[in-house]
Parts: sequence; C-alpha cells; structure tokens
Amino acid sequence: MREVYLDNYAASPLPPEVRDAMLPFLDGRYGNPSSLHSRGDAAREAVEGAREKVAGLIGADPEEIIFTSSGTEANNLAVKGIATGSRRKGKHVVVSAVEHFSVLHAARSLEKQGYELSVISVDEYGRIDLDELASAIDNDTVLVSVMAANGEVGTLQPIVGAARIAAEKEVPFHTDAVASAAHLPINVRELGAQALTLSSDLIYGPQGVGALWLKKGVRLMPMLDGGIQEGGRRGGTENVPGIVGMGKAAELARERMEERSAHLGGLRDAIITRLPEALDHVYLTGHPSERLPWNASFVVEFIEGEGMLLFLDQQGVAVSSGSACTSRALKGSHVLSAMGIPPERAQGSILFSFGPRNSMEDVDYVLDVFPPIVERLRSMSPLYAKYLKERG
Amino acid sequence: MREVYLDNYAASPLPPEVRDAMLPFLDGRYGNPSSLHSRGDAAREAVEGAREKVAGLIGADPEEIIFTSSGTEANNLAVKGIATGSRRKGKHVVVSAVEHFSVLHAARSLEKQGYELSVISVDEYGRIDLDELASAIDNDTVLVSVMAANGEVGTLQPIVGAARIAAEKEVPFHTDAVASAAHLPINVRELGAQALTLSSDLIYGPQGVGALWLKKGVRLMPMLDGGIQEGGRRGGTENVPGIVGMGKAAELARERMEERSAHLGGLRDAIITRLPEALDHVYLTGHPSERLPWNASFVVEFIEGEGMLLFLDQQGVAVSSGSACTSRALKGSHVLSAMGIPPERAQGSILFSFGPRNSMEDVDYVLDVFPPIVERLRSMSPLYAKYLKERG
Repeated sequence: MREVYLDNYAASPLPPEVRDAMLPFLDGRYGNPSSLHSRGDAAREAVEGAREKVAGLIGADPEEIIFTSSGTEANNLAVKGIATGSRRKGKHVVVSAVEHFSVLHAARSLEKQGYELSVISVDEYGRIDLDELASAIDNDTVLVSVMAANGEVGTLQPIVGAARIAAEKEVPFHTDAVASAAHLPINVRELGAQALTLSSDLIYGPQGVGALWLKKGVRLMPMLDGGIQEGGRRGGTENVPGIVGMGKAAELARERMEERSAHLGGLRDAIITRLPEALDHVYLTGHPSERLPWNASFVVEFIEGEGMLLFLDQQGVAVSSGSACTSRALKGSHVLSAMGIPPERAQGSILFSFGPRNSMEDVDYVLDVFPPIVERLRSMSPLYAKYLKERG
Repeated sequence: MREVYLDNYAASPLPPEVRDAMLPFLDGRYGNPSSLHSRGDAAREAVEGAREKVAGLIGADPEEIIFTSSGTEANNLAVKGIATGSRRKGKHVVVSAVEHFSVLHAARSLEKQGYELSVISVDEYGRIDLDELASAIDNDTVLVSVMAANGEVGTLQPIVGAARIAAEKEVPFHTDAVASAAHLPINVRELGAQALTLSSDLIYGPQGVGALWLKKGVRLMPMLDGGIQEGGRRGGTENVPGIVGMGKAAELARERMEERSAHLGGLRDAIITRLPEALDHVYLTGHPSERLPWNASFVVEFIEGEGMLLFLDQQGVAVSSGSACTSRALKGSHVLSAMGIPPERAQGSILFSFGPRNSMEDVDYVLDVFPPIVERLRSMSPLYAKYLKERG
C-alpha cells in the first residue's frame, strides 16, 4: 500500500543532511561543552556553530539564542520568564486566543499566581484584531505574545502591526514562530520584537530541541536552575547532537525556504481547490490567502474527526485533526472555537500538513481515497441522516 | 598521541547498542507519539517501551516515569514541582549542602519565593548527619532532597536512613540518583522514596534526556505547560530518538551493572592507591570506601586546577576539576567547601571519572604523565615556594 504522510506538523522525516550532521556526535565526537579540554572545546564549538546558524535564520545575534528542549519549553520560558522577570513593573500579560497551549497554558499558570491575563479574540479566519490588542495593553502590561502563524489552521497573524503596537507602548513582544520559521522569512530586528520561539522539529530538525531568541537586555527569570549553560539562562548539559541537528536544519531552512515554500504551497493550493470539488460540505478553515504554505485545514461536516483519521490510516494516509499536542485530549480545538466554529462542525476538522517529500501524486491519492471514506462515515452519521431528512 | 578520556562524568561515548537503537528513529521511524495513526502508534510504543526499561532500572511502575530533557530538568521539576504542589501544606524544604546545583539552586529559587530552606551540613567525607536531618524537619516541611551519591567527590549518602527519617515524619523524599544509577542498584519501593532523578547521559545514554520518577499520588506542579504529554505532567513533543536511547541505556545498565562496577572500581582503586605513591601532597577527596565505583577525586596541593587540566589535555588526557556544569564558572566547588576543604586546597581539585571503555593502561599512562606536570606547575607556584621555604 502507498504511504502518504501528510502529518508533517506532528513529526517530519529528517533531511539526510541533518541526520548526517548529527551522527558524529552520537559516535566519536562525544563531549560536554563545559569541559575544559579538547573534547569539551570541540563540543562547545559545535554548539556555538549551531547557535550562529539558528540566529542566522531570524536575523539575530548568536548570543541571544537560548537552546531549550522544545518549542513548548521556549514558549514557557518566554511567557513565564519574561513576566516574572518584570513582576516589579507589572503583572498583566496579553496573548491571543489562538496561541499554542504552551503559551496559553503558561499564561493561565501566571494567572493562578495573581497575574491578570487578557486574551485577544480572533475573527472567523483566526486573525487577531489589532485595535483590541492596542486597547488591552495598559501600564501594568509586561508582555504581549502573539504567534506568527497558527499551525492548526494555517492563519498568519498581523505580527508586524502587533509588534509595532507593543513597541509604542514599550511592552516586550514575544512571537511563537514555531509553525512558520522554516517557510516564511522573519527578521527579529525589522520586526522590533523582544523574544521569538523556534522548535527544531518544525524546521525539519530533530525532536527534543527548541530555541528562544531573547533580545539583549530583556530581563528573564530562568526556569531550569543549575549550571551556567546558555549564559546562565538555562541549566543542564547541552543536547549536543540535537543542537547540531537544529543548527543544520536552520541552515537548510534559510537556503531552501523559497523552494520549499513554493513546492508546499503548490500542494496546499491543489488540495484546497480540489477537495471541495470532490466532496460536499467541506470547508477550508483559517485564512484563504494569508496562510502557511504547508497547511491545508478543513472541517468536514457530519463527520467525527477521529473516524476519518482511522479510515485514512487504513489506506496508508497519515493526517491529523489539528495539533498533535492536543489530539489525545479528545477535546474540541480551542482555535476553531475561538474562530466561532460550532463544536458539531469543529469535530470534523482535518489537517493536511505537507512536507518537502510530498508530491502531487500524494494529493491525487488522497483525493481518490478520501471521498469514499467520508461517504461511508456519513452513511453511519445520525447528524447526516437528520440533515438529509430536513433538506427533504 | 594516546587519548585517555577520564571525564565520563561530563560526557561519555554511547555504547554501540544505544546508538543503534536510536538510529531508526532519526531515519525511517519518525513520528509523533501523540498522532492518531500508525506512525504515531509506533512512536508511542517506542516511548512506552523505553519507559518500561527506565522504570525497570529502579523498580518503579512505568507510568510513574516522567521523561524530561536532562537530570537538571528532573531535579528542578522534583524540587519546585513537589514543593509548589504542596504549598498549602507548608513552605519548608530540606536539602543537603552537597547537592548538585540543579537541586540547590532550585531550592534557593523557592527561598526567593518565600519558602524556608534548611541546608544539611556534611562531614569531611561529604556525608550528611542524619540527626541533623531529623531535627531539621518540622510540620511545615514539604520536601527532603538528598542525593544518592555525589558525582564530584564520589561519596555515597546514607539515603536509606534519610528516606526512613522522611517517611517517619511523612514528608516526601526525593533523591538525585544521577551519579549512581548505572552503577549501584536502587529500588524505589524498598527505599520508600517519593521521587528520584535520572539523567540519560550518566547511564551511558544520549544527552538531552532525563527522567523523574514520581510515586503515584504525589502532587506535582508541572513546569512545562502545554500539551498533555507525560500524563499531563510535562508538555512538549517527546524526544523520541533520545528517549529510546535512554531506554536502551537503562536496559544495559541493569544487565551490565555488576560487571561495569567491578571493572570501574578496579581502575578507581588503582589510581587511588597509586597516585599518592607517585606524588607528594595529593589527597583523596570524598569517602575512602563508601564511594562511586567510577569516581577518583583528589586535591593536589600547591596547584591551580585549570593548569593541570590544560597540561593533561596536551598529553591527551581529558579530566575535570569536578562538575562540568560549574567548571566554566571558575568558582570554588561548593561541595569541597561544605566538606571543610579550604579554598587554597580546593583549587587543586581533580576528578578522574572512569567509563566502561577505560583500561588499566589508561591508569598507567596517567601515572606516567601526571607527576611531571604537577612538578612543573609546582615549580612555578609561589605557594609551593613559600611552603618549601617554611619547611626549610
């Protein structure tokens, strides 16, 4: 059976160049960057080389990059670390309603510690209202966090405007660029931000690594106390092979961004155009044009999402219903809910997330096997029966 | 030139079995354990298999294992997570003076948040006084943390006694077993502890992974908010290759513990016996018999530690002056200081940390090259000149 992997938002195969860059560090080139001998020096140089490459992807200075274990850790460090680092200045944080849970739940945990939290609402496409953002910021605000793009529905946020508003009010601006960094250029200096989150696995690097860019001079309360690694901002022996892999991935992301985005955008546009032609009652979610090149997200009406996933899996097609981080929670998506999509519709959400190895044949295959699956599931759906009856 | 790597406490080569277990997950077996399709299932099974192996090493239930990114993260999670999870019960934490900074600094950060902290002193061998521990615990105490063994000076702590005291007072007991887990058997049920820290790289697994064992029913405040990975106790996409590597390392640690410890203990005993015969003014630090099999730590008088390391490196010998996590801080060791070793002596500390690939030839080589280095450094030492003059 053909394997069609369209869940690159959850996990993605490593490019051979990334794997090859890592392998020596799983073998003869072991070492601890803190050690005061040649092996330590070599490990440290490898980590610093990766730091330069990651910084290069976003126009930052290498010493502003803090390696973490994931995008989740970087988001937690940004939200909690900046807010608690400025707690004498104020205790108010502003985030958007469609942030990843690593931002949203981190902000909620601050709320439990006595912080005030403003959650900016979004329109039907998942975009925040800049006027609402501007009026939410007050003298007590110590952090604004708005993601660059939403991985579940693909929508790009107006972060240039959001960063400008935060800058006018002199409030640090953090953006979670996990979903966009490999595909859309971003320059932290031009953006005028203070912090930015990256995840290695979302730039086609290994799992288990992430990075926080933190502008020089921004106060941060570390989360992981211990040694003085990462400039004293994160304790713990460095994951040298993982960091090296993320560095290589960042280098490739920069070199191949245009080519990859054009390729993925073509596949995305094909499925966005052709799926609604092949199926009734299927609707694109997220913004029709201002969206991630790799992301084609839909709701399929009169369907339960999990059934689609399992039947597609039987046909060799791997997809998700949204974010892998929450798929096992089996709760409705907070993103679709914030966009005003009612729960009975949201339960039929499906996300095709493309990667560099996908081809138009993959799209063709999905368009072959998916409509019969939906018809079969609908034939068992009481909701669909009700709809047909009401329609008469 | 011969390469003699005796800094296994800082980093250690991966056994080929561990690397081979990881490689498929850096290649064709990519996947996210949260995904609801076959690839997700396979990744999840791999992680759960590793969880069983890690649990097996310490006699725990697999669901009690929380994978983290390092021993440092696991220690922070234990200390901060248990203390803040019980903050309504009390705000007093007890740790030993010789804990790793990931315990000690985590406890200090609680102190800044209004917790009371008791730091139990140690004797000249680095062992805590159990009577002092017992009298430090009061009705407000929510956590006692005493390490199983100190990696810098090798001393084993009386954790059976410490755990019993904590249990009598019904206070959760955490032990940092990072330095000992691969070499000394530990069973969390028999110990009667509530939490235990492991680090992958210290059981000959990959960097970038650790684990916290947390007994069922013990309240924990998570540090990384986000998805519901690790039973809701730690958000973030799992580092699948790293976790698989740690699992394999745990399996090997269990199988090879006796053989490895016998081998390493032989090398340790050889250098402990022979170095003071080959050199004047060199003293073992830590306990003479109750010590880690891989650890031979000394102070060499009239010497600055960094000079020894650099000259040894020139001869192909990699060692450290103590903990890699603090080596670049260039401060005196808090462990040696707690043991009452004066700073001018402590600055000559040197740690030979053996690994499975070391041989008696490595010891012989060190005993050849090290004494001339020390003599050369001493010839440049004003302290040594003063000593010689005073001795007359």
